[in-house]
Amino acid sequence: MTETKAALLIIGNEILSGRTVDANLAYLAQALNSVGIRLAEARVITDNTAEIVSHVNALRARYDYVVTTGGIGPTHDDITAASVAQAFNVPLLQHPEALARLTRHYAETGLELTAARLRMANAPQGATLIDNPISSAPGFQIENVLVLAGVPKIMQAMIDDVKGRLHGGEPMLSRSVACDLGEGVIAAGLEAIQLNFSDVEVGSYPRFGGAGGYRVAIVVRHTDENRLAAATLAVTQLIEALGGRPRTG
Amino acid sequence: MTETKAALLIIGNEILSGRTVDANLAYLAQALNSVGIRLAEARVITDNTAEIVSHVNALRARYDYVVTTGGIGPTHDDITAASVAQAFNVPLLQHPEALARLTRHYAETGLELTAARLRMANAPQGATLIDNPISSAPGFQIENVLVLAGVPKIMQAMIDDVKGRLHGGEPMLSRSVACDLGEGVIAAGLEAIQLNFSDVEVGSYPRFGGAGGYRVAIVVRHTDENRLAAATLAVTQLIEALGGRPRTG
Repeated sequence: MTETKAALLIIGNEILSGRTVDANLAYLAQALNSVGIRLAEARVITDNTAEIVSHVNALRARYDYVVTTGGIGPTHDDITAASVAQAFNVPLLQHPEALARLTRHYAETGLELTAARLRMANAPQGATLIDNPISSAPGFQIENVLVLAGVPKIMQAMIDDVKGRLHGGEPMLSRSVACDLGEGVIAAGLEAIQLNFSDVEVGSYPRFGGAGGYRVAIVVRHTDENRLAAATLAVTQLIEALGGRPRTG
Repeated sequence: MTETKAALLIIGNEILSGRTVDANLAYLAQALNSVGIRLAEARVITDNTAEIVSHVNALRARYDYVVTTGGIGPTHDDITAASVAQAFNVPLLQHPEALARLTRHYAETGLELTAARLRMANAPQGATLIDNPISSAPGFQIENVLVLAGVPKIMQAMIDDVKGRLHGGEPMLSRSVACDLGEGVIAAGLEAIQLNFSDVEVGSYPRFGGAGGYRVAIVVRHTDENRLAAATLAVTQLIEALGGRPRTG
């Protein structure tokens, strides 16, 4: 099975400064998975043209898809479109359909389509527009790179259009088994299960501060429901054999 | 001014699957900034040895420091220590002091020091231990790479030790000015301010769904309080000149 893989490039000084906590990664991971694409890597980088160019080019060569978030607004620090054009070595052009959408939106809202707002009509040559049902300023796709807004509400509104463009495999399914045993108690048995189910991804995630001391969540992931059920059963039986109480979620 | 820069490497399938939302980036960004180190890039990667080796080596060559989170527990998917040893091309050894700490901790808590838990005493040859005041299993530092736990409570408990090891410059200070004008209205003036204060980082961050329609937060960042005050004043005056109501935070 060849997995279809995507990388996410989060563009924004505000994330790296710790001022804003990213809210897009988890949402996009699940949206991509729903169309059978695995988020295989994410990077958070600064609002810097050279950085954007270099990371877009590294990631688009390596993954089936690259999704970027952030930097497509009207202000001076919104440099994603120009940087992606540079990464592809094509000119940044005013896109007629983007201009039409912005013109309509600002006429409807009674706001002025300032020179700054007109920048949001720019896209790399050859790009197709990604719909923005909220504030009209579109994202765009060029080859395997999809450029989305950074504001979560707008990014999420663009996902419907995005999903229709992506060609993936089967969605990864997952099952979680929580238990009241420590990781150090279940580790040996869990490793045996992982070896026995080499095609299943078996992860162990401790949680501290829960009632009754620490607990662990074992997460198994696979595209096939039967393999998942078999691995889940093995984990459940392991926990019971060690005197724990499994709780499947 | 040469900035001291760090990269963060978040190791964990559970983040990339969207199951767990990372809570370490923002905390670490602020902790690093408090000792004058700028978080310049972050990457989220899978629990895969080849990936960890490749990213550790890419980042440690490029940045003053690399901080990793995740993958230092007792289970089969905890492969960070072995992978970092491989990245540095040194053996993974049982660290005598780590063993002593684990032995003491498990004797005190009455839990068994299983073979799986003993794995947490392993560190690359030449590494020094990073204290874990919560659950004793230490992190470690090898050259400019600092390996921390992924569980936020434990990662945060390791930060005191970490801060003492880092040599940075002056912390970045920031000021935020919120306003009730749209980005497209302030963009031109804001760009002029950015050109006028080329040493100050000027960022514009729209927020949707706030009361009274959309609002913007302008964030200015600099290590010098006077430059910051001057840039903040310019932003405030711009907003007032455009008929907006600035609110400094």
